[in-house]
Amino acid sequence: MGTALAGALLSAGYRTTVWNRTPGRSADLVARGAAEAESATAAVLASPLVLVTLLDYDGVAELLTRTAQALPGRTVVNLTTGTPDQARAMAARWEERGARYVDGAMMAVPQTVATPEAFFLYSGSREGFESHRHVLDRLAAGHYLGPDPAAAELWDTALLGSGYAALTGFLHGAALLDTVGVPAARFVPLVTQWLEGIAAFMTDLATEIDSGAYAESFSPVGMNRIAVANIVGVSRSQGVDAEVHAPLRALLDRRVADGHGDDSFASLFELLRSRAAPWSGGA
Amino acid sequence: MGTALAGALLSAGYRTTVWNRTPGRSADLVARGAAEAESATAAVLASPLVLVTLLDYDGVAELLTRTAQALPGRTVVNLTTGTPDQARAMAARWEERGARYVDGAMMAVPQTVATPEAFFLYSGSREGFESHRHVLDRLAAGHYLGPDPAAAELWDTALLGSGYAALTGFLHGAALLDTVGVPAARFVPLVTQWLEGIAAFMTDLATEIDSGAYAESFSPVGMNRIAVANIVGVSRSQGVDAEVHAPLRALLDRRVADGHGDDSFASLFELLRSRAAPWSGGA
Ligand SMILES: NC(=O)c1ccc[n+]([C@@H]2O[C@H](COP(=O)([O-])OP(=O)(O)OC[C@H]3O[C@@H](n4cnc5c(N)ncnc54)[C@H](OP(=O)(O)O)[C@@H]3O)[C@@H](O)[C@H]2O)c1
Ligand SMILES: NC(=O)c1ccc[n+]([C@@H]2O[C@H](COP(=O)([O-])OP(=O)(O)OC[C@H]3O[C@@H](n4cnc5c(N)ncnc54)[C@H](OP(=O)(O)O)[C@@H]3O)[C@@H](O)[C@H]2O)c1
Repeated sequence: MGTALAGALLSAGYRTTVWNRTPGRSADLVARGAAEAESATAAVLASPLVLVTLLDYDGVAELLTRTAQALPGRTVVNLTTGTPDQARAMAARWEERGARYVDGAMMAVPQTVATPEAFFLYSGSREGFESHRHVLDRLAAGHYLGPDPAAAELWDTALLGSGYAALTGFLHGAALLDTVGVPAARFVPLVTQWLEGIAAFMTDLATEIDSGAYAESFSPVGMNRIAVANIVGVSRSQGVDAEVHAPLRALLDRRVADGHGDDSFASLFELLRSRAAPWSGGA
Repeated sequence: MGTALAGALLSAGYRTTVWNRTPGRSADLVARGAAEAESATAAVLASPLVLVTLLDYDGVAELLTRTAQALPGRTVVNLTTGTPDQARAMAARWEERGARYVDGAMMAVPQTVATPEAFFLYSGSREGFESHRHVLDRLAAGHYLGPDPAAAELWDTALLGSGYAALTGFLHGAALLDTVGVPAARFVPLVTQWLEGIAAFMTDLATEIDSGAYAESFSPVGMNRIAVANIVGVSRSQGVDAEVHAPLRALLDRRVADGHGDDSFASLFELLRSRAAPWSGGA
């Protein structure tokens, strides 16, 4: 990803300095005009904005130790994947050293960097983000999610989870159709169209979740419970593993058992949400 | 749904005869020009195309018995929700009586009938479908899925399942963001954009599934297993129920345990698909 990011900045005409732990991996970037720093510290000193994309937060912690004396006044945007807790801890450590810390998450693969398909999430130092927004925008559409440095990683988790859930449903649907000899490629156009409608329906669910008004729904738990039981039944009679839908079924059952069968499907949110008070914001 | 369908045909200028078990429920349609039949048999006799939308297949079986003598030469399109097995059994019974039988599934709610959001699935008698396609097209975009009458119900199940899976992922993601005080409505635009990319990715998965070529993937099982474990870990540390992702996690674990950790994510399909031979086609 580091190569793709540096490449996007070069394409956009920015003076770009690169550093990689193992030397020699930046040859293509250097050929395209990048400066190769001899050390991580030299790389940090070269620019006001420092993008970090390593394997994990252990590497990021090492980099911090290694470059500490160069950090005051720099803005560090850490695009390495981690957890919300890691992001909060990392923010505190970089800021202690005088850097502005922005945590980021890349909703992209190397091939989609700097294309309209990609978007990046940012949280942490608003000043750091705002003052370098024009550069960051060349990597991908950027979304600033607030001063809590954990937000980008949490949104990343929420989005990845939603994507995995949709993909799991797709695989299960493809397995069902396979039982009557339908290739998965034939499933794609209709499932895509159907999921567009489902995405539009999420707006309605969100309104119910945010207001907590689950009564008098046109899509009550009880009705959805029957539909999901039917999916499970059809799967079984076709010989297809239905375990994928077991958690949803259990949530619908619990909601009916709790006397909420007439409430909206969206009310399942109440079973998933954390019992702890929401985190209250930044320090 | 019956009211919405008859309304769409009236709007399109078709001579439309309606019948409902409990009389008097068609007053609005009659005011708009529909003829109200005195009996189910009279309704069947009134038109070459008979649309059936009842609560369940028990009602459809009753209707068959009641109207048997009127059926020869009619095309019956049964849009009632049922299972693939019910559809096959029902096709045989109507055809025995001399009707052409088309089974249908409505990917719609009453409000979306005759709008671009809706689409209907059909399977069974190709002749029946083709000769009335111009009428059916006024209800919603129609997709004919082949002569096996079970196909429409099976596709319905596959699509509904995919939609439920996506919605479950959305609710879980919303619960994660709720832990930092983000309203669900703020999640919607980004999750919608992300799911568009996921839908595009389904094309790649389908290619792998249909070819069975799972090796040398850029999205291997092992990598996805770590990502899903991370989603579960973050959920737990935020106090959010992670059970929703347990079946996917179990599938990824099984695939790694079976020595397929380097295969594509799409190879999970092999764990879901039926061990029985695919159904071979019509009788
Ligand atoms: N690839 C994607 O599609 C994608 C998408 C979204 C997010 N991400 C995230 O982006 C980050 C980078 O992913 P990637 O795909 O670019 O991985 P990658 O190709 O494996 O690159 C990892 C980089 O981290 C460096 N590194 C690892 N440990 C280090 C340490 N202790 N000190 C210094 N450098 C260290 C490696 O340097 P050496 O060359 O010396 O080993 C290498 O440059 C990850 O957090 C990943 O989750 C990736
Ligand atoms: N509503 C939706 O959004 C939607 C979407 C897709 C598919 N569907 C499917 O469409 C079908 C109809 O749903 P709906 O929403 O229109 O349901 P509904 O409003 O409850 O209507 C059910 C109809 O079935 C009739 N009926 C029930 N049992 C009967 C019997 N034994 N003999 C004759 N008529 C009988 C009822 O007649 P009475 O008036 O005499 O009770 C009523 O007209 C269902 O299979 C449903 O799953 C609905």
